[in-house]
Amino acid sequence: MEEPIAEPQPLRALIDALRCLPGVGARSSRRMAYHLLQHDPQGATRLADALRQAVDDVRHCRLCNGFSETELCATCSSPRRDASLLCVVETPADQNMIEASHGYTGLYYVLMGRLAPLEGVGPNQLDFDRLLDRACVPEVQEVILATNFTPEGETTAHYLAELLRARGRKVTRLARGVPAGSELEYVDAGTIAWALMERRGT
Amino acid sequence: MEEPIAEPQPLRALIDALRCLPGVGARSSRRMAYHLLQHDPQGATRLADALRQAVDDVRHCRLCNGFSETELCATCSSPRRDASLLCVVETPADQNMIEASHGYTGLYYVLMGRLAPLEGVGPNQLDFDRLLDRACVPEVQEVILATNFTPEGETTAHYLAELLRARGRKVTRLARGVPAGSELEYVDAGTIAWALMERRGT
Repeated sequence: MEEPIAEPQPLRALIDALRCLPGVGARSSRRMAYHLLQHDPQGATRLADALRQAVDDVRHCRLCNGFSETELCATCSSPRRDASLLCVVETPADQNMIEASHGYTGLYYVLMGRLAPLEGVGPNQLDFDRLLDRACVPEVQEVILATNFTPEGETTAHYLAELLRARGRKVTRLARGVPAGSELEYVDAGTIAWALMERRGT
Repeated sequence: MEEPIAEPQPLRALIDALRCLPGVGARSSRRMAYHLLQHDPQGATRLADALRQAVDDVRHCRLCNGFSETELCATCSSPRRDASLLCVVETPADQNMIEASHGYTGLYYVLMGRLAPLEGVGPNQLDFDRLLDRACVPEVQEVILATNFTPEGETTAHYLAELLRARGRKVTRLARGVPAGSELEYVDAGTIAWALMERRGT
């Protein structure tokens, strides 16, 4: 006579709900649930509050499409940013990296994704029309495409460049080349090939 | 002039709260938060509910120390289980594996951990007195130690065996040997050495 594995229903529901997190499967969601209930119920409660608050309060900035609590995010509403530059990134994490470089003072547009036809993500899913409207206001002098240098990111940049150039916009792309501080011996051949092709006079 | 990376406060709080999950660091908590807000707000809300419900409703079974909604879990209160056998496991996941083998009809005691002096987990943290009380009721004829075959699990089993034998209990340990269905060529030498030492007549 087979007896079912007796797991309390709220525990099973939690294990199931944790699988909405990216990269969390059956085994790790169970491990997470056990850990929270056994060792960190306060953390679990805090997480529940934070989830609810973020879902309720975080929306997209009307201009840059990044996450914001207000209609305009802090970056878009700052008078200190250079409104003639618009940098297009895939995610807020990429935007953070560019901010951390302290090499950019312009504004952003966050795609919240990249073209990935195999996953069903096309121009409509990413709402390219909204980006085009944003990029074609008179103040914007240059659109910097800072999507990733992955196949999908490159495709996205290529596609956007066509659309933007057709509308008479100046479009640039982040430079490809040898990473700062690296030794040629340890840089991959593709990167060296690009760095040679895009070599510049000093 | 340095401008801080503008991340809405509820988003920052969520990224921070997600780090209570085991194995989730700064980068993956940010990735999880972006994913939930961008692609799965329903999942986030469901997770918040499940967390709260589990923290509120799940407690420990009075007898086996496993997770339960009620004072006695379904296994401990089942009349079909053999009350003369008590199997000691580290976690509910281990208990599930033993149940899935369909080879055991007795009861359980879940340690919710194992001795790990370097992490500050000693006999008091695991409440060994409670296990001893449970194991020394007259119905229990045999205590099966089913802690893991890791150094910590072995230490825990050794320590518990001493305590239980001192109280006149019959103590056994899961057999070590060659895994079912495996070829000797691919089994590690330590396992073969154990299987040789513990060989049995047929």
